[in-house]
Amino acid sequence: MRFDIITVLPGLLESPFAHSILQRAQKKGIAEIVVHNLREYSTQKQRSVDDYPYGGGSGMVMQIAPFAACIEKLKSERDYDEVIFMSPDGKTLNQAMANQLSGLTNVIILCGHYKGIDQRIRDIFVTKEISVGDYVLSGGELPSAIVVDAVVRLIPGVLNDETSALSDSFQDDLLDAPVYTRPADWNGHKVPDILLSGDQAKIEIWRHDEALKRTQDRRPDLLE
Amino acid sequence: MRFDIITVLPGLLESPFAHSILQRAQKKGIAEIVVHNLREYSTQKQRSVDDYPYGGGSGMVMQIAPFAACIEKLKSERDYDEVIFMSPDGKTLNQAMANQLSGLTNVIILCGHYKGIDQRIRDIFVTKEISVGDYVLSGGELPSAIVVDAVVRLIPGVLNDETSALSDSFQDDLLDAPVYTRPADWNGHKVPDILLSGDQAKIEIWRHDEALKRTQDRRPDLLE
Repeated sequence: MRFDIITVLPGLLESPFAHSILQRAQKKGIAEIVVHNLREYSTQKQRSVDDYPYGGGSGMVMQIAPFAACIEKLKSERDYDEVIFMSPDGKTLNQAMANQLSGLTNVIILCGHYKGIDQRIRDIFVTKEISVGDYVLSGGELPSAIVVDAVVRLIPGVLNDETSALSDSFQDDLLDAPVYTRPADWNGHKVPDILLSGDQAKIEIWRHDEALKRTQDRRPDLLE
Repeated sequence: MRFDIITVLPGLLESPFAHSILQRAQKKGIAEIVVHNLREYSTQKQRSVDDYPYGGGSGMVMQIAPFAACIEKLKSERDYDEVIFMSPDGKTLNQAMANQLSGLTNVIILCGHYKGIDQRIRDIFVTKEISVGDYVLSGGELPSAIVVDAVVRLIPGVLNDETSALSDSFQDDLLDAPVYTRPADWNGHKVPDILLSGDQAKIEIWRHDEALKRTQDRRPDLLE
């Protein structure tokens, strides 16, 4: 799967894509993540990509021409399944959406910054608007990294242990049961006896009960 | 405001904290962001910080001792308002929570990785569990950056234009109205006439109507 990410802050995305699972997925050739510097597509002096909003008001608005130039160049090179814009207005990312996206081949992700992007970019080029949650961030860069991380780890072959992703929270609409590791006793704080019992059938029942209890307690909406 | 972030992947967080608003807030002395390498608090050979889960199953679990050592060292140096654990089980971050957090002085953020962290860390040390959304990620690192970004930009003096944060999406439970900038005509795609009219009163009414319309269309739940 290939991600083309268009941003005014390519440097911000350097370290998230160079570590952990995203690094591994790229080394294995399962994911390709290309970050494009929007300023390189500016035709203006000083490589500016934004201007004042029509109608007045605070903040700067990103202009249509640089995005259009970058998107059109990419589209001339390959077909894209989606042109995604990261925006608090978008559909909220969830695990089902991540699963769906993980089946795509090529996607472009546009990162807004400043006050926003010219609405015409959204009207003309964008096929999907995604929000990572109901909060405002400085730009779409971290959200784009969230989407890439959530999606890439679902592509077969990326996680070392294939069963790991399947037992994650949300995959079965239940939060995870508590987990414990050594030592069995830490300053008097002990691991539940059942986990030391060796009775695998009972342990699985306990885990399911705990997952259900935690979900009922914290996220009853997931059970509806 | 000071953030102490504890992680096995300090390198992953380098570039997000070195750009844009977070860089500026640190330069101005408004925010201090310190990333701690959990491995430095391991007492084991090879600086390992995880072990197999009790009761079997896939994935590794992060051990209590390294987190305990790092948290206790930090607590001996200053008082903390919250010890936050980033987890899909946590309360979902929203703008109200970001506003609330922006009033704090010192917070510790724990990033989990692998299958999870020993439940006793959560029981003993953690005072607040936060989720950035209903999706599974490789670790708590990107979510911690999301929290820091959402919170720091709300601290007075961080944004250049004080009115900018107030007019953001969610601050008044409305999504933003569309924004436009030059050119007024791009390949036949035009900016709405009203924004070129110079009639500021009418423009504000239009913007409010558009914000309401967009919210009704995309996020009716915000209006309830």
